[in-house]
Amino acid sequence: MRIARFSVREGAAAGSVSFGIVEGDSTQPESLRVHAIAGHPFGDAQPTGEVYQLDQVRLLSPMLPSKIVAVGRNYAAHAAELGNEVPEVPLTFFKPNTAVIGPTESIAYPPFSSDVQHEAELAVVIGRMCREVPVERVPEVVFGYTCANDVTARDIQQREGQWARAKGFDTSCPLGPWIETQLDPADLAVTCTVNGELRQTGRTSLMLHGIPELIAHISEAMTLLPGDVILTGTPAGVGPLNVGDEVAVSIEGIGTLTNRVIKRG
Amino acid sequence: MRIARFSVREGAAAGSVSFGIVEGDSTQPESLRVHAIAGHPFGDAQPTGEVYQLDQVRLLSPMLPSKIVAVGRNYAAHAAELGNEVPEVPLTFFKPNTAVIGPTESIAYPPFSSDVQHEAELAVVIGRMCREVPVERVPEVVFGYTCANDVTARDIQQREGQWARAKGFDTSCPLGPWIETQLDPADLAVTCTVNGELRQTGRTSLMLHGIPELIAHISEAMTLLPGDVILTGTPAGVGPLNVGDEVAVSIEGIGTLTNRVIKRG
Repeated sequence: MRIARFSVREGAAAGSVSFGIVEGDSTQPESLRVHAIAGHPFGDAQPTGEVYQLDQVRLLSPMLPSKIVAVGRNYAAHAAELGNEVPEVPLTFFKPNTAVIGPTESIAYPPFSSDVQHEAELAVVIGRMCREVPVERVPEVVFGYTCANDVTARDIQQREGQWARAKGFDTSCPLGPWIETQLDPADLAVTCTVNGELRQTGRTSLMLHGIPELIAHISEAMTLLPGDVILTGTPAGVGPLNVGDEVAVSIEGIGTLTNRVIKRG
Repeated sequence: MRIARFSVREGAAAGSVSFGIVEGDSTQPESLRVHAIAGHPFGDAQPTGEVYQLDQVRLLSPMLPSKIVAVGRNYAAHAAELGNEVPEVPLTFFKPNTAVIGPTESIAYPPFSSDVQHEAELAVVIGRMCREVPVERVPEVVFGYTCANDVTARDIQQREGQWARAKGFDTSCPLGPWIETQLDPADLAVTCTVNGELRQTGRTSLMLHGIPELIAHISEAMTLLPGDVILTGTPAGVGPLNVGDEVAVSIEGIGTLTNRVIKRG
Protein backbone atom coordinates (compact mmCIF):
# COMPACT_ATOMS: atom_id res chain seq x y z
CA MET A 1 0.00 0.00 0.00
CA ARG A 2 1.23 3.48 -0.87
CA ILE A 3 0.38 6.15 1.71
CA ALA A 4 0.62 9.78 0.63
CA ARG A 5 -0.10 13.08 2.33
CA PHE A 6 -1.54 15.74 0.08
CA SER A 7 -3.42 18.97 -0.23
CA VAL A 8 -6.18 19.47 -2.76
CA ARG A 9 -5.37 22.06 -5.43
CA GLU A 10 -8.85 23.36 -6.37
CA GLY A 11 -12.56 23.21 -5.55
CA ALA A 12 -14.41 23.25 -2.26
CA ALA A 13 -11.68 21.17 -0.53
CA ALA A 14 -8.80 23.36 -1.84
CA GLY A 15 -5.92 23.58 0.60
CA SER A 16 -7.19 20.88 2.92
CA VAL A 17 -4.53 18.36 3.93
CA SER A 18 -5.27 14.63 4.16
CA PHE A 19 -3.60 11.29 3.97
CA GLY A 20 -4.52 9.05 1.09
CA ILE A 21 -3.88 5.70 -0.53
CA VAL A 22 -2.27 5.90 -3.97
CA GLU A 23 -3.41 3.32 -6.52
CA GLY A 24 -2.21 2.74 -10.07
CA ASP A 25 1.05 2.20 -11.92
CA SER A 26 3.69 4.58 -10.60
CA THR A 27 5.57 4.49 -13.91
CA GLN A 28 2.44 5.96 -15.54
CA PRO A 29 1.54 9.02 -13.45
CA GLU A 30 -1.70 9.62 -15.35
CA SER A 31 -2.95 6.24 -14.09
CA LEU A 32 -2.49 7.18 -10.44
CA ARG A 33 -5.43 7.94 -8.18
CA VAL A 34 -5.30 9.19 -4.60
CA HIS A 35 -8.07 7.82 -2.37
CA ALA A 36 -8.43 10.13 0.63
CA ILE A 37 -8.62 8.49 4.04
CA ALA A 38 -10.10 9.87 7.23
CA GLY A 39 -7.68 10.29 10.10
CA HIS A 40 -4.13 9.06 10.34
CA PRO A 41 -2.76 5.99 8.55
CA PHE A 42 -1.29 4.63 11.80
CA GLY A 43 -4.84 4.22 13.04
CA ASP A 44 -7.82 2.63 11.39
CA ALA A 45 -7.62 4.30 7.97
CA GLN A 46 -11.10 4.58 6.43
CA PRO A 47 -11.49 5.78 2.84
CA THR A 48 -13.67 8.90 2.65
CA GLY A 49 -14.81 8.12 -0.89
CA GLU A 50 -12.98 11.17 -2.32
CA VAL A 51 -10.69 10.21 -5.20
CA TYR A 52 -8.26 12.53 -6.97
CA GLN A 53 -6.03 12.30 -10.00
CA LEU A 54 -2.41 13.06 -9.21
CA ASP A 55 -2.55 16.45 -10.95
CA GLN A 56 -5.46 17.51 -8.76
CA VAL A 57 -3.35 17.35 -5.60
CA ARG A 58 -0.05 18.59 -4.27
CA LEU A 59 1.87 15.73 -2.69
CA LEU A 60 3.41 16.76 0.64
CA SER A 61 6.05 15.05 2.71
CA PRO A 62 4.28 11.80 3.62
CA MET A 63 5.17 12.28 7.30
CA LEU A 64 6.05 15.15 9.59
CA PRO A 65 8.57 13.32 11.75
CA SER A 66 9.37 14.34 15.32
CA LYS A 67 12.94 13.44 14.47
CA ILE A 68 15.05 12.19 11.61
CA VAL A 69 18.02 10.02 12.44
CA ALA A 70 20.45 9.67 9.56
CA VAL A 71 23.42 7.41 9.00
CA GLY A 72 26.67 8.48 7.38
CA ARG A 73 29.12 6.43 5.32
CA ASN A 74 26.92 3.35 5.11
CA TYR A 75 28.05 2.36 1.60
CA ALA A 76 31.77 1.59 1.16
CA ALA A 77 31.98 3.15 -2.32
CA HIS A 78 30.53 6.43 -1.02
CA ALA A 79 32.86 6.55 1.98
CA ALA A 80 35.77 5.98 -0.39
CA GLU A 81 34.74 8.69 -2.86
CA LEU A 82 34.98 11.29 -0.07
CA GLY A 83 38.22 9.80 1.26
CA ASN A 84 36.66 8.48 4.47
CA GLU A 85 37.15 5.21 6.30
CA VAL A 86 34.04 3.11 6.78
CA PRO A 87 32.84 3.36 10.38
CA GLU A 88 32.85 0.23 12.55
CA VAL A 89 29.64 1.29 14.23
CA PRO A 90 26.99 3.25 12.35
CA LEU A 91 27.71 6.99 12.24
CA THR A 92 24.45 8.60 13.36
CA PHE A 93 23.33 12.22 13.19
CA PHE A 94 20.07 14.15 13.24
CA LYS A 95 18.30 16.27 10.69
CA PRO A 96 15.63 18.58 12.14
CA ASN A 97 12.00 18.39 11.04
CA THR A 98 12.22 22.01 9.82
CA ALA A 99 14.37 20.60 6.99
CA VAL A 100 11.59 18.40 5.61
CA ILE A 101 9.94 19.19 2.28
CA GLY A 102 7.68 17.12 0.07
CA PRO A 103 7.90 16.07 -3.55
CA THR A 104 6.26 19.20 -4.92
CA GLU A 105 8.46 21.64 -3.00
CA SER A 106 11.85 23.05 -3.93
CA ILE A 107 15.29 22.78 -2.39
CA ALA A 108 16.30 26.35 -1.51
CA TYR A 109 20.02 26.77 -2.04
CA PRO A 110 21.30 28.30 1.21
CA PRO A 111 23.37 31.46 0.82
CA PHE A 112 26.09 30.33 3.26
CA SER A 113 27.22 27.40 1.08
CA SER A 114 28.67 27.14 -2.39
CA ASP A 115 28.73 23.33 -2.59
CA VAL A 116 25.30 21.82 -1.98
CA GLN A 117 25.16 18.15 -2.96
CA HIS A 118 22.54 15.44 -3.44
CA GLU A 119 22.53 12.17 -1.47
CA ALA A 120 19.86 9.68 -2.54
CA GLU A 121 18.75 7.42 0.31
CA LEU A 122 16.18 4.86 1.33
CA ALA A 123 14.17 6.22 4.27
CA VAL A 124 12.48 4.01 6.85
CA VAL A 125 9.31 5.34 8.51
CA ILE A 126 8.75 4.12 12.05
CA GLY A 127 5.25 2.89 12.85
CA ARG A 128 5.20 2.53 16.61
CA MET A 129 6.84 3.91 19.69
CA CYS A 130 9.82 1.74 20.53
CA ARG A 131 13.16 1.57 22.31
CA GLU A 132 15.84 -1.13 22.52
CA VAL A 133 14.39 -3.00 19.57
CA PRO A 134 16.19 -6.32 19.02
CA VAL A 135 17.39 -6.89 15.46
CA GLU A 136 14.88 -9.67 14.90
CA ARG A 137 11.92 -7.51 15.96
CA VAL A 138 12.75 -4.48 13.80
CA PRO A 139 10.13 -5.39 11.14
CA GLU A 140 7.43 -4.93 13.79
CA VAL A 141 8.27 -1.25 14.28
CA VAL A 142 8.58 -0.31 10.59
CA PHE A 143 5.57 1.35 8.98
CA GLY A 144 7.08 1.57 5.51
CA TYR A 145 9.68 3.05 3.20
CA THR A 146 10.05 6.19 1.16
CA CYS A 147 12.70 8.05 -0.85
CA ALA A 148 14.87 10.72 0.73
CA ASN A 149 17.48 13.18 -0.37
CA ASP A 150 19.98 13.91 2.41
CA VAL A 151 20.90 17.27 0.87
CA THR A 152 24.28 18.35 2.22
CA ALA A 153 26.29 21.57 2.17
CA ARG A 154 29.57 19.75 1.60
CA ASP A 155 31.78 22.80 2.20
CA ILE A 156 30.10 23.45 5.55
CA GLN A 157 30.29 19.76 6.45
CA GLN A 158 34.03 19.84 5.86
CA ARG A 159 34.54 23.02 7.90
CA GLU A 160 32.32 22.23 10.89
CA GLY A 161 33.01 19.11 12.92
CA GLN A 162 29.36 18.39 13.67
CA TRP A 163 26.83 18.51 10.86
CA ALA A 164 23.83 20.37 12.25
CA ARG A 165 24.10 23.26 9.80
CA ALA A 166 25.59 21.30 6.88
CA LYS A 167 22.77 18.75 6.88
CA GLY A 168 20.07 20.58 8.82
CA PHE A 169 19.34 23.71 6.80
CA ASP A 170 15.78 24.36 5.66
CA THR A 171 14.70 22.17 2.69
CA SER A 172 17.65 19.78 3.14
CA CYS A 173 15.39 16.77 3.71
CA PRO A 174 13.05 16.05 0.78
CA LEU A 175 10.87 13.00 1.52
CA GLY A 176 8.36 11.21 -0.71
CA PRO A 177 6.55 10.75 -2.96
CA TRP A 178 4.69 8.34 -0.65
CA ILE A 179 5.32 5.55 1.85
CA GLU A 180 5.30 2.01 0.51
CA THR A 181 4.17 -0.24 3.33
CA GLN A 182 4.68 -3.58 1.58
CA LEU A 183 8.27 -3.88 0.51
CA ASP A 184 11.30 -6.03 1.20
CA PRO A 185 14.09 -3.42 1.53
CA ALA A 186 16.96 -5.92 1.36
CA ASP A 187 18.06 -5.43 -2.26
CA LEU A 188 16.53 -2.40 -3.98
CA ALA A 189 18.12 -0.22 -6.66
CA VAL A 190 18.71 3.36 -5.48
CA THR A 191 19.44 5.97 -8.12
CA CYS A 192 19.78 9.71 -8.36
CA THR A 193 19.56 11.77 -11.51
CA VAL A 194 20.17 15.49 -12.01
CA ASN A 195 18.41 17.00 -15.01
CA GLY A 196 17.87 13.46 -16.24
CA GLU A 197 21.55 12.50 -16.07
CA LEU A 198 22.42 9.52 -13.88
CA ARG A 199 24.61 10.55 -10.95
CA GLN A 200 24.19 7.93 -8.21
CA THR A 201 23.46 4.27 -8.43
CA GLY A 202 23.62 1.55 -5.83
CA ARG A 203 21.67 -1.24 -4.22
CA THR A 204 20.46 -1.39 -0.62
CA SER A 205 22.16 -4.79 -0.35
CA LEU A 206 25.46 -2.85 -0.35
CA MET A 207 24.69 -1.12 2.95
CA LEU A 208 27.46 -1.78 5.46
CA HIS A 209 24.95 -1.79 8.31
CA GLY A 210 21.53 -3.11 7.32
CA ILE A 211 18.19 -1.70 8.43
CA PRO A 212 17.67 -4.11 11.35
CA GLU A 213 21.13 -3.32 12.72
CA LEU A 214 20.63 0.44 12.25
CA ILE A 215 17.29 0.56 14.05
CA ALA A 216 18.54 -1.69 16.86
CA HIS A 217 21.60 0.56 17.25
CA ILE A 218 19.67 3.85 17.25
CA SER A 219 16.85 2.59 19.47
CA GLU A 220 19.37 1.24 21.96
CA ALA A 221 19.93 4.90 22.85
CA MET A 222 16.65 6.66 22.15
CA THR A 223 12.92 6.18 21.87
CA LEU A 224 11.61 6.27 18.33
CA LEU A 225 8.11 7.67 17.81
CA PRO A 226 5.54 6.87 15.12
CA GLY A 227 6.42 8.88 12.03
CA ASP A 228 10.10 9.21 12.91
CA VAL A 229 12.33 8.66 9.91
CA ILE A 230 15.64 6.81 9.59
CA LEU A 231 17.84 7.70 6.61
CA THR A 232 20.02 4.74 5.72
CA GLY A 233 22.98 6.33 3.94
CA THR A 234 23.81 7.15 0.34
CA PRO A 235 25.57 5.11 -2.35
CA ALA A 236 28.46 6.46 -4.41
CA GLY A 237 28.12 9.26 -6.93
CA VAL A 238 27.26 12.27 -4.78
CA GLY A 239 27.82 15.58 -6.50
CA PRO A 240 26.85 19.22 -6.77
CA LEU A 241 23.43 20.73 -7.25
CA ASN A 242 22.92 24.13 -8.82
CA VAL A 243 20.04 26.56 -8.87
CA GLY A 244 17.69 25.49 -11.66
CA ASP A 245 18.55 21.79 -11.43
CA GLU A 246 15.93 19.09 -11.11
CA VAL A 247 17.10 16.26 -8.84
CA ALA A 248 15.29 12.92 -8.74
CA VAL A 249 15.78 10.08 -6.26
CA SER A 250 14.30 6.78 -7.40
CA ILE A 251 14.02 3.61 -5.36
CA GLU A 252 12.89 0.35 -6.85
CA GLY A 253 9.45 -0.63 -5.57
CA ILE A 254 8.68 2.86 -4.22
CA GLY A 255 8.84 5.53 -6.91
CA THR A 256 10.59 8.80 -7.64
CA LEU A 257 11.07 11.88 -5.48
CA THR A 258 11.73 14.93 -7.68
CA ASN A 259 12.66 18.41 -6.46
CA ARG A 260 13.80 21.55 -8.20
CA VAL A 261 16.64 23.62 -6.80
CA ILE A 262 15.87 27.31 -6.37
CA LYS A 263 17.63 30.29 -4.82
CA ARG A 264 16.57 30.83 -1.23
CA GLY A 265 13.98 33.62 -1.26
CA MET B 1 8.65 36.45 35.06
CA ARG B 2 9.23 32.72 35.71
CA ILE B 3 7.18 30.38 33.50
CA ALA B 4 6.85 26.75 34.60
CA ARG B 5 5.01 23.77 33.21
CA PHE B 6 3.59 21.45 35.80
CA SER B 7 1.16 18.72 36.66
CA VAL B 8 -0.95 18.78 39.80
CA ARG B 9 -0.13 16.02 42.26
CA GLU B 10 -3.47 15.51 44.05
CA GLY B 11 -7.11 16.51 44.14
CA ALA B 12 -9.69 16.99 41.40
CA ALA B 13 -7.08 18.42 39.01
CA ALA B 14 -4.52 15.62 39.65
CA GLY B 15 -2.45 14.83 36.58
CA SER B 16 -3.61 17.81 34.56
CA VAL B 17 -0.75 19.68 32.87
CA SER B 18 -0.66 23.49 32.73
CA PHE B 19 1.72 26.36 32.40
CA GLY B 20 2.05 28.67 35.36
CA ILE B 21 3.80 31.75 36.68
CA VAL B 22 6.12 31.09 39.62
CA GLU B 23 6.26 33.78 42.30
CA GLY B 24 8.36 33.99 45.43
CA ASP B 25 12.01 33.71 46.42
CA SER B 26 13.65 30.83 44.57
CA THR B 27 16.23 30.41 47.33
CA GLN B 28 13.35 29.65 49.70
CA PRO B 29 11.31 26.92 47.99
CA GLU B 30 8.58 27.04 50.63
CA SER B 31 7.86 30.63 49.62
CA LEU B 32 7.18 29.73 45.98
CA ARG B 33 3.68 29.73 44.52
CA VAL B 34 2.66 28.55 41.07
CA HIS B 35 -0.18 30.57 39.53
CA ALA B 36 -1.76 28.47 36.77
CA ILE B 37 -2.41 30.21 33.47
CA ALA B 38 -4.88 29.29 30.76
CA GLY B 39 -3.41 28.43 27.40
CA HIS B 40 0.17 28.83 26.29
CA PRO B 41 2.60 31.44 27.62
CA PHE B 42 3.51 32.53 24.07
CA GLY B 43 -0.04 33.76 23.70
CA ASP B 44 -2.11 35.94 25.98
CA ALA B 45 -1.47 34.16 29.28
CA GLN B 46 -4.43 34.65 31.62
CA PRO B 47 -4.22 33.45 35.24
CA THR B 48 -6.92 30.93 36.04
CA GLY B 49 -6.97 31.84 39.72
CA GLU B 50 -5.59 28.43 40.77
CA VAL B 51 -2.52 28.76 42.98
CA TYR B 52 -0.31 25.91 44.19
CA GLN B 53 2.58 25.55 46.58
CA LEU B 54 5.62 24.01 44.97
CA ASP B 55 5.17 20.69 46.79
CA GLN B 56 1.64 20.36 45.39
CA VAL B 57 2.90 20.12 41.82
CA ARG B 58 5.41 18.21 39.75
CA LEU B 59 7.48 20.59 37.67
CA LEU B 60 7.89 19.33 34.10
CA SER B 61 10.29 20.46 31.42
CA PRO B 62 9.13 24.05 30.88
CA MET B 63 8.96 23.49 27.10
CA LEU B 64 8.57 20.56 24.73
CA PRO B 65 10.85 21.82 21.99
CA SER B 66 10.49 20.75 18.36
CA LYS B 67 14.27 20.79 18.29
CA ILE B 68 17.25 21.45 20.52
CA VAL B 69 20.35 22.91 18.93
CA ALA B 70 23.42 22.62 21.12
CA VAL B 71 26.86 24.12 20.88
CA GLY B 72 30.08 22.29 21.69
CA ARG B 73 33.36 23.68 23.03
CA ASN B 74 32.04 27.17 23.67
CA TYR B 75 34.17 27.75 26.78
CA ALA B 76 37.94 27.66 26.30
CA ALA B 77 38.66 25.99 29.64
CA HIS B 78 36.23 23.16 28.84
CA ALA B 79 37.65 22.60 25.36
CA ALA B 80 41.11 22.42 26.94
CA GLU B 81 40.12 19.94 29.67
CA LEU B 82 39.08 17.45 26.98
CA GLY B 83 42.15 18.19 24.86
CA ASN B 84 40.21 19.92 22.10
CA GLU B 85 40.97 23.05 20.10
CA VAL B 86 38.40 25.82 20.33
CA PRO B 87 36.34 25.96 17.13
CA GLU B 88 36.51 29.07 14.95
CA VAL B 89 32.84 28.80 14.12
CA PRO B 90 30.35 27.44 16.66
CA LEU B 91 30.21 23.64 16.69
CA THR B 92 26.51 22.85 16.43
CA PHE B 93 24.66 19.58 16.98
CA PHE B 94 21.14 18.43 17.77
CA LYS B 95 19.60 16.71 20.73
CA PRO B 96 16.20 15.10 20.04
CA ASN B 97 13.09 16.08 21.99
CA THR B 98 12.76 12.49 23.21
CA ALA B 99 15.81 13.28 25.40
CA VAL B 100 14.02 16.02 27.35
CA ILE B 101 13.10 15.53 31.00
CA GLY B 102 11.97 17.99 33.64
CA PRO B 103 13.30 18.88 37.05
CA THR B 104 11.36 16.15 38.88
CA GLU B 105 12.42 13.34 36.55
CA SER B 106 15.53 11.17 36.67
CA ILE B 107 18.46 10.71 34.34
CA ALA B 108 18.38 7.02 33.34
CA TYR B 109 21.94 5.73 32.96
CA PRO B 110 22.00 4.05 29.55
CA PRO B 111 23.33 0.48 29.50
CA PHE B 112 25.55 1.04 26.44
CA SER B 113 27.81 3.57 28.21
CA SER B 114 30.08 3.40 31.21
CA ASP B 115 31.06 7.08 31.28
CA VAL B 116 28.03 9.35 31.48
CA GLN B 117 28.97 12.93 32.36
CA HIS B 118 27.22 16.16 33.39
CA GLU B 119 27.48 19.38 31.38
CA ALA B 120 25.80 22.39 32.99
CA GLU B 121 24.57 24.92 30.44
CA LEU B 122 22.50 28.03 30.01
CA ALA B 123 19.58 27.26 27.69
CA VAL B 124 17.85 29.86 25.54
CA VAL B 125 14.16 29.33 24.73
CA ILE B 126 13.05 30.75 21.39
CA GLY B 127 9.82 32.77 21.42
CA ARG B 128 8.95 33.24 17.79
CA MET B 129 9.45 31.62 14.43
CA CYS B 130 12.53 33.07 12.84
CA ARG B 131 15.30 32.53 10.29
CA GLU B 132 18.39 34.54 9.37
CA VAL B 133 18.15 36.62 12.54
CA PRO B 134 20.73 39.44 12.53
CA VAL B 135 22.86 39.61 15.68
CA GLU B 136 21.27 42.87 16.77
CA ARG B 137 17.72 41.47 16.52
CA VAL B 138 18.34 38.27 18.49
CA PRO B 139 16.74 39.68 21.68
CA GLU B 140 13.43 39.92 19.78
CA VAL B 141 13.28 36.16 19.19
CA VAL B 142 14.24 35.06 22.72
CA PHE B 143 11.42 34.09 25.06
CA GLY B 144 13.63 33.43 28.08
CA TYR B 145 16.31 31.33 29.73
CA THR B 146 16.44 28.12 31.70
CA CYS B 147 19.01 25.65 33.06
CA ALA B 148 20.06 22.62 31.07
CA ASN B 149 22.22 19.59 31.57
CA ASP B 150 23.73 18.39 28.28
CA VAL B 151 24.22 14.88 29.66
CA THR B 152 26.83 13.09 27.56
CA ALA B 153 28.00 9.50 27.21
CA ARG B 154 31.66 10.50 26.92
CA ASP B 155 32.90 7.05 25.88
CA ILE B 156 30.37 6.89 23.06
CA GLN B 157 31.15 10.46 22.03
CA GLN B 158 34.81 9.53 21.69
CA ARG B 159 34.06 6.37 19.70
CA GLU B 160 31.42 7.73 17.32
CA GLY B 161 32.29 10.67 15.09
CA GLN B 162 28.83 12.22 15.21
CA TRP B 163 27.11 12.60 18.56
CA ALA B 164 23.50 11.51 17.99
CA ARG B 165 23.70 8.57 20.40
CA ALA B 166 26.27 10.04 22.81
CA LYS B 167 24.18 13.17 23.42
CA GLY B 168 20.75 12.06 22.24
CA PHE B 169 19.84 9.12 24.45
CA ASP B 170 16.61 9.26 26.45
CA THR B 171 16.81 11.56 29.53
CA SER B 172 20.02 13.22 28.32
CA CYS B 173 18.45 16.68 28.23
CA PRO B 174 17.12 17.83 31.61
CA LEU B 175 15.58 21.32 31.34
CA GLY B 176 14.17 23.59 34.04
CA PRO B 177 13.09 24.37 36.65
CA TRP B 178 11.33 27.21 34.80
CA ILE B 179 11.95 29.85 32.15
CA GLU B 180 13.06 33.26 33.36
CA THR B 181 11.82 35.78 30.82
CA GLN B 182 13.51 38.88 32.30
CA LEU B 183 17.20 38.31 32.46
CA ASP B 184 20.39 39.73 31.00
CA PRO B 185 22.35 36.58 30.07
CA ALA B 186 25.66 38.34 29.47
CA ASP B 187 27.46 37.51 32.71
CA LEU B 188 25.75 34.88 34.86
CA ALA B 189 27.39 32.32 37.14
CA VAL B 190 26.85 28.73 35.94
CA THR B 191 27.59 25.94 38.40
CA CYS B 192 27.12 22.22 38.67
CA THR B 193 27.20 20.16 41.84
CA VAL B 194 27.06 16.41 42.26
CA ASN B 195 25.78 15.24 45.67
CA GLY B 196 26.38 18.79 46.88
CA GLU B 197 30.02 18.90 45.79
CA LEU B 198 30.99 21.66 43.37
CA ARG B 199 32.10 20.24 40.02
CA GLN B 200 31.65 22.94 37.41
CA THR B 201 31.84 26.67 37.67
CA GLY B 202 31.99 29.36 35.04
CA ARG B 203 30.38 32.56 33.87
CA THR B 204 28.41 33.08 30.68
CA SER B 205 30.73 36.02 29.90
CA LEU B 206 33.39 33.38 29.14
CA MET B 207 31.47 31.96 26.18
CA LEU B 208 33.62 32.03 23.06
CA HIS B 209 30.57 32.71 20.90
CA GLY B 210 27.89 34.73 22.66
CA ILE B 211 24.15 34.16 22.45
CA PRO B 212 23.49 36.72 19.67
CA GLU B 213 26.23 35.20 17.53
CA LEU B 214 25.03 31.63 18.20
CA ILE B 215 21.42 32.34 17.27
CA ALA B 216 22.43 34.32 14.18
CA HIS B 217 24.70 31.45 13.13
CA ILE B 218 22.14 28.69 13.69
CA SER B 219 19.22 30.60 12.19
CA GLU B 220 21.31 31.41 9.12
CA ALA B 221 20.78 27.76 8.23
CA MET B 222 17.46 26.76 9.75
CA THR B 223 14.12 28.08 10.90
CA LEU B 224 13.71 28.18 14.67
CA LEU B 225 10.24 27.61 16.06
CA PRO B 226 8.64 28.91 19.27
CA GLY B 227 9.76 26.65 22.10
CA ASP B 228 12.95 25.52 20.38
CA VAL B 229 15.90 25.44 22.74
CA ILE B 230 19.52 26.50 22.19
CA LEU B 231 22.11 25.04 24.57
CA THR B 232 25.06 27.40 24.80
CA GLY B 233 27.94 25.13 25.86
CA THR B 234 29.38 24.04 29.17
CA PRO B 235 32.16 25.55 31.30
CA ALA B 236 35.08 23.51 32.64
CA GLY B 237 34.73 20.79 35.23
CA VAL B 238 32.71 18.12 33.45
CA GLY B 239 32.91 14.72 35.07
CA PRO B 240 31.23 11.39 35.68
CA LEU B 241 27.78 10.68 37.01
CA ASN B 242 26.91 7.46 38.77
CA VAL B 243 23.64 5.75 39.58
CA GLY B 244 22.36 7.25 42.82
CA ASP B 245 23.95 10.66 42.29
CA GLU B 246 22.02 13.89 42.53
CA VAL B 247 23.22 16.44 39.97
CA ALA B 248 22.25 20.11 40.22
CA VAL B 249 22.75 22.83 37.61
CA SER B 250 22.39 26.36 38.99
CA ILE B 251 22.34 29.55 36.99
CA GLU B 252 22.39 32.95 38.61
CA GLY B 253 19.05 34.71 38.18
CA ILE B 254 17.20 31.54 37.15
CA GLY B 255 17.40 28.83 39.81
CA THR B 256 18.49 25.22 40.17
CA LEU B 257 17.70 22.17 38.05
CA THR B 258 18.17 18.99 40.10
CA ASN B 259 17.96 15.42 38.80
CA ARG B 260 18.75 12.07 40.29
CA VAL B 261 20.60 9.44 38.31
CA ILE B 262 18.94 6.03 38.19
CA LYS B 263 19.55 2.79 36.35
CA ARG B 264 17.57 2.60 33.13
CA GLY B 265 14.47 0.51 33.84
